[in-house]
Formats: sequence, C-alpha cells, structure tokens
Amino acid sequence: MGNNLLKGKRGIIFGALNDMSIAWKVAELAHEEGATFTLSNTHVACRMGDVTKLAEKTGAELIPADATNVEDLENVFKKSTEVLGGKIDFVLHSIGMSLNVRKKRVYHDLDYNYLQKTLDISAISFHKMLQVAFKQDAMNEWASVLALSYVAAQRTLYGYNDMADAKALLESIARSFGYIFGRQKKVRVNTISQSPTVTTAGSGVKGIDGLIDFSDRMSPLGNADAEDCANFCLMMFSDYARKVTMQNLYHDGGFSSMGMSMRAMKQYNKSFDSGEIEDLY
Amino acid sequence: MGNNLLKGKRGIIFGALNDMSIAWKVAELAHEEGATFTLSNTHVACRMGDVTKLAEKTGAELIPADATNVEDLENVFKKSTEVLGGKIDFVLHSIGMSLNVRKKRVYHDLDYNYLQKTLDISAISFHKMLQVAFKQDAMNEWASVLALSYVAAQRTLYGYNDMADAKALLESIARSFGYIFGRQKKVRVNTISQSPTVTTAGSGVKGIDGLIDFSDRMSPLGNADAEDCANFCLMMFSDYARKVTMQNLYHDGGFSSMGMSMRAMKQYNKSFDSGEIEDLY
Amino acid sequence: MGNNLLKGKRGIIFGALNDMSIAWKVAELAHEEGATFTLSNTHVACRMGDVTKLAEKTGAELIPADATNVEDLENVFKKSTEVLGGKIDFVLHSIGMSLNVRKKRVYHDLDYNYLQKTLDISAISFHKMLQVAFKQDAMNEWASVLALSYVAAQRTLYGYNDMADAKALLESIARSFGYIFGRQKKVRVNTISQSPTVTTAGSGVKGIDGLIDFSDRMSPLGNADAEDCANFCLMMFSDYARKVTMQNLYHDGGFSSMGMSMRAMKQYNKSFDSGEIEDLY
Amino acid sequence: MGNNLLKGKRGIIFGALNDMSIAWKVAELAHEEGATFTLSNTHVACRMGDVTKLAEKTGAELIPADATNVEDLENVFKKSTEVLGGKIDFVLHSIGMSLNVRKKRVYHDLDYNYLQKTLDISAISFHKMLQVAFKQDAMNEWASVLALSYVAAQRTLYGYNDMADAKALLESIARSFGYIFGRQKKVRVNTISQSPTVTTAGSGVKGIDGLIDFSDRMSPLGNADAEDCANFCLMMFSDYARKVTMQNLYHDGGFSSMGMSMRAMKQYNKSFDSGEIEDLY
Repeated sequence: MGNNLLKGKRGIIFGALNDMSIAWKVAELAHEEGATFTLSNTHVACRMGDVTKLAEKTGAELIPADATNVEDLENVFKKSTEVLGGKIDFVLHSIGMSLNVRKKRVYHDLDYNYLQKTLDISAISFHKMLQVAFKQDAMNEWASVLALSYVAAQRTLYGYNDMADAKALLESIARSFGYIFGRQKKVRVNTISQSPTVTTAGSGVKGIDGLIDFSDRMSPLGNADAEDCANFCLMMFSDYARKVTMQNLYHDGGFSSMGMSMRAMKQYNKSFDSGEIEDLY
Repeated sequence: MGNNLLKGKRGIIFGALNDMSIAWKVAELAHEEGATFTLSNTHVACRMGDVTKLAEKTGAELIPADATNVEDLENVFKKSTEVLGGKIDFVLHSIGMSLNVRKKRVYHDLDYNYLQKTLDISAISFHKMLQVAFKQDAMNEWASVLALSYVAAQRTLYGYNDMADAKALLESIARSFGYIFGRQKKVRVNTISQSPTVTTAGSGVKGIDGLIDFSDRMSPLGNADAEDCANFCLMMFSDYARKVTMQNLYHDGGFSSMGMSMRAMKQYNKSFDSGEIEDLY
Repeated sequence: MGNNLLKGKRGIIFGALNDMSIAWKVAELAHEEGATFTLSNTHVACRMGDVTKLAEKTGAELIPADATNVEDLENVFKKSTEVLGGKIDFVLHSIGMSLNVRKKRVYHDLDYNYLQKTLDISAISFHKMLQVAFKQDAMNEWASVLALSYVAAQRTLYGYNDMADAKALLESIARSFGYIFGRQKKVRVNTISQSPTVTTAGSGVKGIDGLIDFSDRMSPLGNADAEDCANFCLMMFSDYARKVTMQNLYHDGGFSSMGMSMRAMKQYNKSFDSGEIEDLY
Repeated sequence: MGNNLLKGKRGIIFGALNDMSIAWKVAELAHEEGATFTLSNTHVACRMGDVTKLAEKTGAELIPADATNVEDLENVFKKSTEVLGGKIDFVLHSIGMSLNVRKKRVYHDLDYNYLQKTLDISAISFHKMLQVAFKQDAMNEWASVLALSYVAAQRTLYGYNDMADAKALLESIARSFGYIFGRQKKVRVNTISQSPTVTTAGSGVKGIDGLIDFSDRMSPLGNADAEDCANFCLMMFSDYARKVTMQNLYHDGGFSSMGMSMRAMKQYNKSFDSGEIEDLY
C-alpha cells in the first residue's frame, strides 16, 4: 500500500522460494514500504533463477544458509548488519519441511530420524536464529521477529503429520525466547497462524485441496492468501504493534474461531443426497 | 458402574426433564453410585409424569424452582440440606433456553428482552445458585459444582445463536465464582463442554442433524452421549478430582482438538461429485 | 506516526472521556493518520469541556448516546454516515462500567439488577451497535470494528468482579457477530485485550496499583499504555489486517503468555524477608 | 480410596523413582484400586532399592528401558502383555529431563545437542511409546494413556528453560496421536497439567521454592500434590472418562484460570514496605 510503513527499517527474510511463497510477498511489499533487507534461503534455493530475480528486484543481498546450521546463521546476521549498515529491525522465519510427509511415512509409522529433521528445520532453526541474533546483539530495540505457523499446532488435521508437532514447538519457542528477548532487548517475537495457503511447500500435504475448500467455506472472510498475510506481517513489523509479543496471531479469515459455518454445513450436507445420513440415527 | 463412587454424598440436580436429559442420566447413575440427592426443575416440569417417576425411582425429593428466582433457589438449598440431612457435596446445573432460538430470531435480529432472558436462564441462574449456596454456607468442603456447556462458547456455530454468548458467560461465572468458592470453602466449580447431544432442549437448534453427524465424524471417539457425560460428571463429583477447579473440561470424543479428520473430510469431499470443487481452483 | 494509514476512512469512536482514555488517544492518532470520524459518549459526558475540546481539535461531530439504547445508536450511525459523507470504515467500542464495583458489592454478594446493567453497558451495547450497523447497512466492505477487553475474560483477577463476566460476554459477542458480519458484509470484528491501564474507568478497581505493578514486572515489554494501544487499534483498522476477524488480540507486553518472570519473582521474594517462606516447607 | 475403580485393568507405569514421584503414587493407588501393572524406568533407576521395593509391594514386574529407545519400548510392551496376561488398559508417561537445566545452560545459550536430548527424553519418547503400542496392537479398546505436563507449555516461567518447549511438544504429540489412536482403536490419549510438585526431577529447576509458594497462593485450592494427581490419573484411567481424549487437563487447584488472587497479591504487596511501589507512579 506504500505508506512508508517500514521506512528506514532493516530486515532479514528467510524462506522466499518463488512468487507463491509468503516470504516472497513480504519481500516485495516490504520493499514498497521503504525497508531494506537481505534474503536468505538454502544454498540450492539461492541458485534458482527466481530467488536471484527477487533479490535484484528488491535490491536485496542474497545470503545462502542452512537454517539448522548455527555458523551459517551467524554469517547471515553478521553480513546483514554489515550490508544494511546497522542493526536489524525485523526478521521473518518462513521455513518448514517434513521428510515424513515427503516420504509418505504416516504419523503412526514415523521415522524418528526424519522427525528430528522436521523439528530441526521447522522449529529449532527459529531458536538458533534468535540465539544467534541475541548473542551478536544484532537486533535494534523494538525490533520484531515473526515466524509462520498453522492452526495444526492447536488442532489435529488429517495428513498434516509431524508438521503439527513442529508448529507447536515453533510457537513455544516464540513464547520462550520472546520472554528473554523482550526482557533484555525490547525485541518482540510472535508467530502468525495463517490460513492454508497454496505454496510449493504446502502442496505436498495430503488432501490439501479439500481442506482448503472446507477452510474457505468455514471462514467468514474466506481463506487469507499470501499477499494478505504479507500485509499483516508488515504491520507486525511496524511500530504500530510495539507492545505485542509472545503471541500466536490468527490470520485466517476467522477460521480458528469457527465451529461450523452455514456455507460449510450446506456443502457438507450435499454429500448426503444418497440418504446416507439417515443410516446414522 | 456401581463402585460406590458417591457413597454418602448429598447432591442437588437441576434440569432433569426426560430420559434424554443428561441430568436424568446423572440422577440415575448417581443413585447407583450411592448418592442421595434432590431434583429441581421448573414448576411446570415438576408436574410432568416423567420427572415424578425419576424422583420416585431414585428416592429423590422434587423441589420446584424457577432457577432465575433467588428466593426459589434459597428454598431449594434450604430444603435440600434438611431433606438430605446435611450439607451438599455436589450440584449439577443443566439449564439452558433461548427465546430468540425458539421464536426464530436470528443473531443479527435479536430481541433484547429475549437475550436478557437467555442470559438469565442459561448463565446468571448459575451465579444465583452459587451465591445462594455460598451465603447459606450450604456446601461441604471439597464439594463439586458442575454446569453443562458447549464448544460454542469458544467457536461460533451457525444457528446456535445467543446460546453461544450464554455459554461463554456461564463458563466465565464458573471461573469467577470458582475462585471465591475455592478460596473460602474449598468448593470446586467447573463446566463440562459436552458433544452436541440429542435432548429435548437441543432439538430446537437449526440444522442440528447435519451438525451432529459432522461432529461425530470429526471426533476420533465419536460424539459422547448423555450416559457418557453422566459418567464423567460422577467422576468430577467424586473425591478423585478434588484439585480440579475453574476449568472447562471438554467431554466430546476429541472434537475440540480436531481441525479436520479423515472421516469428515471424506464425507465432505463426496459433496463435490458434481465437479464443483474444480471450479474453485 | 502519520503514515496516512487511515486516509479517507470514516469512523465512529465510542467512549473518549478525557486524555487518559484509550478512545481519546485513538481519536487523536486516527486524526493524524488522515481519518475523519464522529465521537459518541453519554449525554452527561458530551457536556464536559474535555470531550468538546477533543471534538474541536479533531474536527469531529459529537453525537451523544446511551449505548444501551437502540434508538440512540440508530441515531449515531445514521448521523455519522450523513456527517462523514458515506459508509463507516471503523468503529471503536471503549465502554465499560459496573455498578457492583462502584457500590462495593463483592462478587459473592452481587446485586442482580446491577449485574444486568454491567452486562448491558459493557457487553450487550456492543451487540446493539453491531446490529444497528448491520440493519442500516452502514458499514463499508472490509470495515473493522474493535472493542476493548481485558485478560480477566480468561483468568480471574481478585477485585475485578462482574466486569470479568462482562468481558467474557463481550468477546463472545465479537466472535458471534463477527461470523455474521464477515460472511454477509466482509466486516471484521475483533477485541483487543489490553494491559491494565490507568484510566478514569479503571481507577475504581480494587487494589489496582499493586496489580499494575505486578503486571508490569510480569510483562517482558512492560505494560502497554493507552497510546501504545491506540496505535495498535489504528493498525487493526487499517487495510493491513483485512483477514483478521473474530479474534481476541492480546496487546499487553507479553503478560498473557507469562507464567512467572524473573523480575516479578524477585519482587515477590522480597516479601519473605521475615523468613516466612521457610515456614511453608 | 479403594473403590475397585481399576479392577481387572492392566497397565504400564513409566517413571516411578521414589516416594516423591507422581508415578510412584499412581502405582500405589492403582494397586489399591485393583489394577495389575508393570513398572518401567531407566536401567540405572531399576537397580535402586526404592524402585524394587515398590515393585514388590505392588506385585509389579520391573522392566528396565531407555524410553528413547524403540527396541527397549517394544520389549516393555511385549513383556507387559505377557506378564499381565492380556492387552494393556492404561499407560502413564511421567518422564522428563533437561541437560540444559542440569548443566545450567540458560535458554538464550542452549546447547543444541542437549536440547535434542531434552525433546527426545521428555516428549518424543511419548510418541515412541504410542507408536510401539499401536504397532503391536497392544492396547485394549477404550484404553487410556496419560502423560504429565505443566502450564509452562502455555505460559513462560523464568528458569523452566527448554522443558517448556518439551512440554508443548509433548502435548502436541498427545493430540496428534490421540486422533490416530482414537480413530483406529478407541484409545484415549491425554496430558495432565499438574501443579509444580516437589519431586526429585522438579527440584533442579531454578527458583522453584518461590514459584511453588506463589503458585500455591494463586490457586484457590492450593497446589495439587502428588497424591491428588495420582487420584486424578486413576479417574482418567477408569471407565468414567471414556470419551475424553486429545485434551490437556489442568490439575492445579485452579492456578491456570487465575490472573491474580487476593492471597498472592497481599504477599506481593508486602515486598513494598520500603515504599518502593511509590517510586513507580
């Protein structure tokens, strides 16, 4: 919207992969709002044409890093403060991956090495990021750190598998470190619990289409898309939300507060044309 | 199950109307578990054959009362301690009614006199009950008070109307008075958030059939029925749960912790045989 | 901060009394951000010098109304759309009062007429406001409605009395009506759960000083003040938060996610200089 | 209380170390209620005199196992069904340990190998247990599985460190696997969020004394002790709670629903005798 909302602010954005990524939209919009930032992603991702184009377009330096590797993260924060010319005002963590999901290991047949990787990549990386930033004293007072989460952290969704546990861990880390970072440095740490979003990462989840449709019909405002989410992230990075910390904020068109909507119920009831519903009672 | 779980305990059960009522089942099972109690319901209900039969069967005195009337409630507690020969160990509040629902006033066209009645009957009656019991010093130490609630207090369900607000208020009263009653008299106060249950009271709610089916398919253990709920109430009345207070306990087969089950999703997806789902993406 | 965040938006602000009020700060800052709005308060409050000065300063028409009176509210919405030249984009409900608190009736000795007034003024007024706006079709698409709440809706605080129940009801109404208003008109409805704030309204609550100190030491960012809160309200009114609805957002420096902070624990432990703590174990 | 509540039921109890352990009390009381069970703990713990005495006293076979080792767990479940003569009806997981806490690594200076162990021992062990039981088809229908948790999973407590994240993960696993186990086998999985309890495990946590005092004064019924907790566990194992699953149940004297009690506030205010409180305002 271009209100110079982030004018003069320096950031680091983790996880922009292509124009379906929420992190990608955050980068585009943060650029429009006057922020400067670096981009970070895996070494493989950083060699992709898309990511380099985003870097060019937004004037951002691209700093490859394995987000589970503390030394890589130290490099990202060190280089970012150098390149941007000062301490950091905002960080986005948009990273998640489950080998159990990818390899089709169901939740009652988990591979525990994969589980460890799911947690390390999708949740513990956030702690590592925060700890590195804290130790380097790399954040400005009132800086804002966000990680993207999903309602699966509170409610079980068929097929979401060990990512649900990773999100619960991620949200806990946000609270735990939010306390420390707030107390010591006035830095805010929050998670945003976003509607299911059609991204490259999300598209591997089982039965995601039906779920997205259901979620959309349940939510009075419909599912929030990646651009909506990016706008909300900007706001949370801005000075308008300086006293919000240790929260998990639902950005989901109302889904999380719905038990049953008329629209979803009507659709559901269509499934009983066969009369099957009578059998139940 | 007849383990003498409530042997020697004295109670008051509000709201048993017929054998579909949860309160009815609580009365039957509490009797089996060795409790003695009185039954209370509206003056009209107390003249019904069903209610008098329950009273006979369980050896319970029937004390009519308008639960919104403080004097009536004073009489119930006073008489109950007399009849039962001592202070009270457990109370069940199973009372709820919305004139807006009955008169088909939708939530965006509420009649505010009806709303006031909904709140008075379904929620404030619980405060009145607790305040009367407190002032009369009618409860034994470690007594247990329960009110029945529904997940609508947390999540909006199409058609549940102002009863959702009444349940939210009811749960708040349980917390607020639970603090006082715990601190002063070691009395516990909790609410039980029960699966949608086919009772006479519940049957007026719009679209209840589809909702009950959906809820059943979402819940890994299926919907809890009235007898299940009664058993859980007995447990909460017993000495096995003496340090649980100010809680809202979900007794719902797991529904409240579900985002989407395989079973509900499969049923939902059947509604798209027409190919309608493709149009969305 | 003057980013034209609310440029071209029209609003109604209920409850600005003096420069300690959160609503007052919202008016001042919304004016700076380019919004036009009307102010509403009780007939008595509207005759006070302070309120008329705020109206002048912000170019706002002052429309007296008893917020429990539907006709008065109809007049506020009708006049506001006329004066402002179009439909409404944002509404703030900052209204709360308990006669039980004022008259020092404790929670286990409530006057039920007072309780009814507490609920009517502090919570049901919000439903009336929303229903009037809905029926008049007075809100623009993507408009944002906020009411101010407090963590007492979830956790009992000594002395907060029946205001806790009113806040629980208020938050439930926000969800229930948020569903309808979102579904039909794309209007968002949320509550903000604010730190305890020294306002004229808040100052009557028992033991408020100790509580505010404790809350401040518990919160990693300290208590949020009225101006912080106003900034967050602006954010929620803006287009950056268009898909957030039916939520209760904690704006409290982290308090709601704290169990015990080092700072509060240290202060608490000072109370045991007498050695009293040893007696306990 | 000896009501034969668990008559005929077979169980496995993990984590009884000495007579301060909650698991120890569960074993003693489950024995009184007619259950038969095996006990499991680490190889080191199983050689301790205390543990062997408990085994003798309750007629339980002792099966050593590292709870992070899948093969060990397979052996526990296999042997238990053999020894007890049938499928299992209840399991208690009372296991938690943080090397970061032990080695005094604060939360903003975590050792990530230690963190991995904290999560593996305190949370992932629960998944392993459930997965083993599921794969062996070792549980009876309507069996009940419990793990012990703490409110730190929701609210940050100074000094509780990475155990907070472990408990959040533990509770998520209970939900995630509770869905699968409920759906497929009608087995319930829940966590109990217990008051801070003086156990050998708990005694290492920083500042635990002050916290326990504060928690006790905040809770209207006072802190729940190990025996209270054991009684509640029995109830949750029994058939009285068959439709409760995927829940985190607070067994804490009301603490989790308190914002501030009169008793805690009075104590807190004593800390200001020096007049320090005036300085703040």
